[in-house]
Amino acid sequence: MPQQFRTVGLWGRLSEPSVAEPAKQVLAHLRKHRIRVFAATDARDELPDGLTAVAETELAERVDLVVAIGGDGTLLHAARHVAERGVPLLGINRGRLGFLTDISPEHMFDAIDAILAGNYLEEKRLMLRAQMTDTTRHPRLVALNDVVLQKGETGRMLDFVTTVDGSYVNTHRGDGLIVATPTGSTAYALSCGGPIIQPNVDALVMVPICPHTLSDRPLVLKLTSSIEVRVETDAGSPAQVVCDGEALGRIGAGEVLRIGLADETVTLLHPRDYNYYELLRSKLNWGRANRSDSSVRRG
Amino acid sequence: MPQQFRTVGLWGRLSEPSVAEPAKQVLAHLRKHRIRVFAATDARDELPDGLTAVAETELAERVDLVVAIGGDGTLLHAARHVAERGVPLLGINRGRLGFLTDISPEHMFDAIDAILAGNYLEEKRLMLRAQMTDTTRHPRLVALNDVVLQKGETGRMLDFVTTVDGSYVNTHRGDGLIVATPTGSTAYALSCGGPIIQPNVDALVMVPICPHTLSDRPLVLKLTSSIEVRVETDAGSPAQVVCDGEALGRIGAGEVLRIGLADETVTLLHPRDYNYYELLRSKLNWGRANRSDSSVRRG
Amino acid sequence: MPQQFRTVGLWGRLSEPSVAEPAKQVLAHLRKHRIRVFAATDARDELPDGLTAVAETELAERVDLVVAIGGDGTLLHAARHVAERGVPLLGINRGRLGFLTDISPEHMFDAIDAILAGNYLEEKRLMLRAQMTDTTRHPRLVALNDVVLQKGETGRMLDFVTTVDGSYVNTHRGDGLIVATPTGSTAYALSCGGPIIQPNVDALVMVPICPHTLSDRPLVLKLTSSIEVRVETDAGSPAQVVCDGEALGRIGAGEVLRIGLADETVTLLHPRDYNYYELLRSKLNWGRANRSDSSVRRG
Amino acid sequence: MPQQFRTVGLWGRLSEPSVAEPAKQVLAHLRKHRIRVFAATDARDELPDGLTAVAETELAERVDLVVAIGGDGTLLHAARHVAERGVPLLGINRGRLGFLTDISPEHMFDAIDAILAGNYLEEKRLMLRAQMTDTTRHPRLVALNDVVLQKGETGRMLDFVTTVDGSYVNTHRGDGLIVATPTGSTAYALSCGGPIIQPNVDALVMVPICPHTLSDRPLVLKLTSSIEVRVETDAGSPAQVVCDGEALGRIGAGEVLRIGLADETVTLLHPRDYNYYELLRSKLNWGRANRSDSSVRRG
Repeated sequence: MPQQFRTVGLWGRLSEPSVAEPAKQVLAHLRKHRIRVFAATDARDELPDGLTAVAETELAERVDLVVAIGGDGTLLHAARHVAERGVPLLGINRGRLGFLTDISPEHMFDAIDAILAGNYLEEKRLMLRAQMTDTTRHPRLVALNDVVLQKGETGRMLDFVTTVDGSYVNTHRGDGLIVATPTGSTAYALSCGGPIIQPNVDALVMVPICPHTLSDRPLVLKLTSSIEVRVETDAGSPAQVVCDGEALGRIGAGEVLRIGLADETVTLLHPRDYNYYELLRSKLNWGRANRSDSSVRRG
Repeated sequence: MPQQFRTVGLWGRLSEPSVAEPAKQVLAHLRKHRIRVFAATDARDELPDGLTAVAETELAERVDLVVAIGGDGTLLHAARHVAERGVPLLGINRGRLGFLTDISPEHMFDAIDAILAGNYLEEKRLMLRAQMTDTTRHPRLVALNDVVLQKGETGRMLDFVTTVDGSYVNTHRGDGLIVATPTGSTAYALSCGGPIIQPNVDALVMVPICPHTLSDRPLVLKLTSSIEVRVETDAGSPAQVVCDGEALGRIGAGEVLRIGLADETVTLLHPRDYNYYELLRSKLNWGRANRSDSSVRRG
Repeated sequence: MPQQFRTVGLWGRLSEPSVAEPAKQVLAHLRKHRIRVFAATDARDELPDGLTAVAETELAERVDLVVAIGGDGTLLHAARHVAERGVPLLGINRGRLGFLTDISPEHMFDAIDAILAGNYLEEKRLMLRAQMTDTTRHPRLVALNDVVLQKGETGRMLDFVTTVDGSYVNTHRGDGLIVATPTGSTAYALSCGGPIIQPNVDALVMVPICPHTLSDRPLVLKLTSSIEVRVETDAGSPAQVVCDGEALGRIGAGEVLRIGLADETVTLLHPRDYNYYELLRSKLNWGRANRSDSSVRRG
Repeated sequence: MPQQFRTVGLWGRLSEPSVAEPAKQVLAHLRKHRIRVFAATDARDELPDGLTAVAETELAERVDLVVAIGGDGTLLHAARHVAERGVPLLGINRGRLGFLTDISPEHMFDAIDAILAGNYLEEKRLMLRAQMTDTTRHPRLVALNDVVLQKGETGRMLDFVTTVDGSYVNTHRGDGLIVATPTGSTAYALSCGGPIIQPNVDALVMVPICPHTLSDRPLVLKLTSSIEVRVETDAGSPAQVVCDGEALGRIGAGEVLRIGLADETVTLLHPRDYNYYELLRSKLNWGRANRSDSSVRRG
C-alpha cells in the first residue's frame, strides 16, 4: 500500500536562484496540501515563509519524504543522508532531466499531486559501503553511484591490487578504479568505458580508470561481492577515496580499501509513466541521426 | 554427491594430428579405468582401437561425460549437442589454455583421474535460445557464448530496433548486435567493447557492433530478459544470425529475432584448483609489465 | 583566381522526392544564371525541363562543377566519378548537414550565388587507391573516405597480416581492417575506435575492426605509406573489399590487397563561413549537456 | 657523416642497484674506448672510479652523447635537459625494453661499439612546449611525450575550452586533456583511447581524459598547430600541468595553457637493426594468441 506523506523535506542549494524558484513553488504547492515542509539548510534567515530549517543530518528524522531539487549531484548528496532511515526520495531537475532527478519543473506539480495521492512507482536502489584500513581515522562511507580510488596530485600512475571475495584478481596500473552500482553505471564509470547496467540487475561493476594495460577491462561482479583494493605504490602522494563525487579520505601505499554492498538502500519515487530507457535515450542522445543522415557513412 | 562416470564421449577434430594425439592418450588412459569410450565422428575407419563411433547427435544419449579436445570452439560446438541431455563436459586444450578448455595436455591425466574419483568442481553455465520470426523455416537455436546479428555481405550498415521485455530500448545503426552470456562476455563481445562478466552473475549483455552512434554502449540486462531485435533496413542483403560462431540463419528487413535464456544449461567440470581469475589473467596478459617498466609512462 | 563555372552537373537520386525537390529548385536557380545544367542519371523521361541527362561516367567531361544533392554517400559516389578529371564538388544536404554535404537547403541559393561569383573556399581532399593481387580480375579502385577489408558471410574471424612500406607490422585477427583518409576518419573508422583526423593533416589511419587482441589499436601512418594486407585465413568465405561503402571485390586466403595514396584528389567547394569544427560539434553533439547537468556526474 | 663521440654522460638513478650495475659495466666499456665519462648526479662519493659527477643542468654542456640507463621515464627526464643543446641520446633498459630505451643490457656493448664506430641510425623526435598565462610565475616547459592538463584533488570534473589556431574546437568536461607527440602516443594517450602515431608522421594528438561526452574523441592535428586550453571550472582545486609525467605547474579557472611545437628536438640513436614495429609488437603483446587459440572466439 502506498505511503501517506505528511511531512516533506526540501533538499537543494536554496541560495541558487535556479533552485530557489522551483523550491518556493513546491513549498507553496505542498502547503496547499497541508504538508509540513522542512529544508535541509543552515541559511535560516533566507528561507521563505513556511519553511522550517533543520540540519542536513537531522532532516531524515523529521520527514517522511525528501524532495531533492537540482541536479543528480544534489540527489546523490541527499541520498547518503537519508539512506539510513529509509526516507524515500523524489528528484526534481531545474533544467534538463537527470538520471535521478527525473521530474522536470513543468511536470512537478502533477508529479507531487500523484505521489501525495499514493499514485507512484517505488524503486529500491542499492548502495555501496567503503571502509579504509584505519577505521578510527575514517568513518564508514556509503555511495549510491560509485566508490572511486583515484591517484593523488601526481603525474604518475597508481599501482594497486584487487581481490574479490578473497581471490586475487589483478595487479593494476593506472589512474585508479571505480566500483559502481547499476545506478552509477551511467555516471563516471561510463566515461571510463564501463557498460550501462540496468537498475534491476543484481551486479556491481569494477572499472579501471585509464589503465596502463589495454586489456584491463571493466569487470561485472555479483552484487554481494566483497572487493579489496590494496594500494602498492602511490607515486608520492596518497590516493583519494571519492564517494559519489565527494573526496572523503586518503589512502597511502600499503593501505586497503574495502568495498561491498551497504545495508542501506535508497527508495526513489517516480511518476507512473517513468521509463528508464526513455531517460537513457534522452541522456545519451540515442536514436538521433547523430553523425549523419542514412547515406553518410558507407556510400 | 559426485557422479560416477562409466561411459565417456570424446569430441574433437580427430582428423587433425594436434587433436588425434592427445585423444589417443586420453582413450588409452580411460580404458585403463575400464571406461567405455565413444567418439562423435563419422571418420570411422580412422578411429583408433577401442573407440566406438557414434553420430554427433547421438553421443549425448550414450555417454555420461563428454571430453572435448581442441579449442573453446570445439567445446562450444559440443555444448550445443549435449545441453539438452545435461551431460557434463570437460575441456582439454591441445595448446594454450582456453576459457572453456581449461585443462592443458600435461595435466590431463591428473584431471581425468581426479574427475573419475569424484574429485572435481561442477559449474552450471547458462545458455541462450534464439528464434526467428519464421519458426517453420528456422529451428530453435541455442548458444553458450552468444547470439549475434550481423550485417550481410554489404558495405552498408544495418538499421535495427531493440526491445527488452516489450519496452522499446533503442534504434541502432551499425554492423550488428551481440547478445552474450557471462560465458560469452570474454569472447566476441569483448572485442566489441563489452565488459567481462563473471560466470556467477545473473545477467546478459547486449553489445552493439561498431555502432554509428558513439554513445550506443553495451547494456547489461537481467538474466531473464526477453530481447527482440527487429531489422529495419538490411542494406540489400539479409542479416545473419550467428550462434557461438556458426552462421545458422538469415533475417531480412521487417523480421524479428527473439533472444532469451534457454531452458538448457551446460555443466562444466573443472579440477579442484580451477581459478577463473587465473584464466582471465593468463588469457588477457594481465599483470605483466606490458607496455613498459614502471617508469615508462609518466616520468 | 577563382574559376568561372558555366556548366554544372547535378548528382543525386532524382527519383527520390526529398532529392528531386531541391534539385528542381537548384536547376531553376542555375538557369537564371544562364548556366547549362546536366544530370547524371538514366531516368531521362523523368527529368524536369532544362536538365540534360548524361551517363554517370560521362558527366565529368561535360561540366566544370558538380553539385551533389543528398547525403554524404551521394557525394562520395560522385567523387569517385569526377576525381580523375578534377571537377570540383559542392554538396547540398536535403536534411541535416553532412560532413561533405555541408550546405543546407535553406542556404543553397546563397551558397550557389557566392560560388558563381567566385566567392568560395576550395579544399583539396586526398583519395586512396586500392588494388588486389589479380589486377586483371579487379579494376583499380579509388576511395575518398576509406578502403575496408571485411570478413565474408561467416561467423568466424579473418586472419590477416599487414605490412607498411615493406615492413611487417602485425598479424591481426578480427572482423577486418579500415584504411581511412582524414576525410574518412569521421565515418566508419570512428565507429571502430579510430581518431578524428583533421582534413589538413598529411596522414592515413589503419583501424582494425573488432580485433581479437585488445591492444590492436588504430595506427596513424604517413600519407605516402604503402600498405599491404595479406589474407591468411578467410574462414570459409572470401573477404570483401569495400570502397566508400560499396563492395567492389572479393579477396581470398593468400591474396593481397594493396592500399596507398591515389594520384587523384577531390576538390570540395565551401561557402566562406565553412567551419570544420562547427561541423564536428554539430555531427558529434559536442558541447551539449549530454548526459547530465553539471552536478550529475560526481556530486 | 656520423658523429665522433669523445665524451659521454651517463644518466640514471645510480643509487638503484639495477641501474648502478649496468652503469658500471658501461663505464668500464667506455673507458676501454678512451671515452671520458660524466654522470648527472649529486651522489659524488658513491660514484665508481673514473666517473666525473656534474649537475643535471650542466651535463649537456660537457658531453657529446648521453646514455640514459633505466626506463623510458629516465630517458624522458634526460631529454628535457639535453634538448636545448641537441646532444643525442641512447637508451639502455635495465629490464624489458622500453619504447625509448630500446637497448637491452645483453646487447649494450655491441650497441655502444657500433655507435662509437659511427654505425647507427639517428632519429629526430619532436617536442612540445607549454606555457601558462602567468609566464612570470611559470617557466616555459618542454615535453617529449606529452603535456597533460589534469584535474586537481577533487572528485569533480574539469570544464575547459579548446581552440586550435584561434578557432574554437569544443567545450569539454572530464578529467583533463593530453596533447601528445607521436612519441607520446604510445604512453599515457594510449591508455585514454588515443591512436598509435608513427614517429615519422607530422602530427600531434589531443586526447580527452575520461570525457563526460562519449563522442569527445581523440583529435589528430597538424604538427604546427597552436593549441589553447582555457580552464572554465576547476571544481575547487586548480588543475595541474604535467609534462612527461612530472607535475610542473597549476592552472586555475580562467587561466589558459598554450601548447605547441617546441623549437628543440631530441636526437635518438638506435642500432642499425632498430625496428619500430618490432617494439610495438613486443610492448603491446601483438601477434600472440592472447585470448585464445584460433577456434575460441567464434565456434
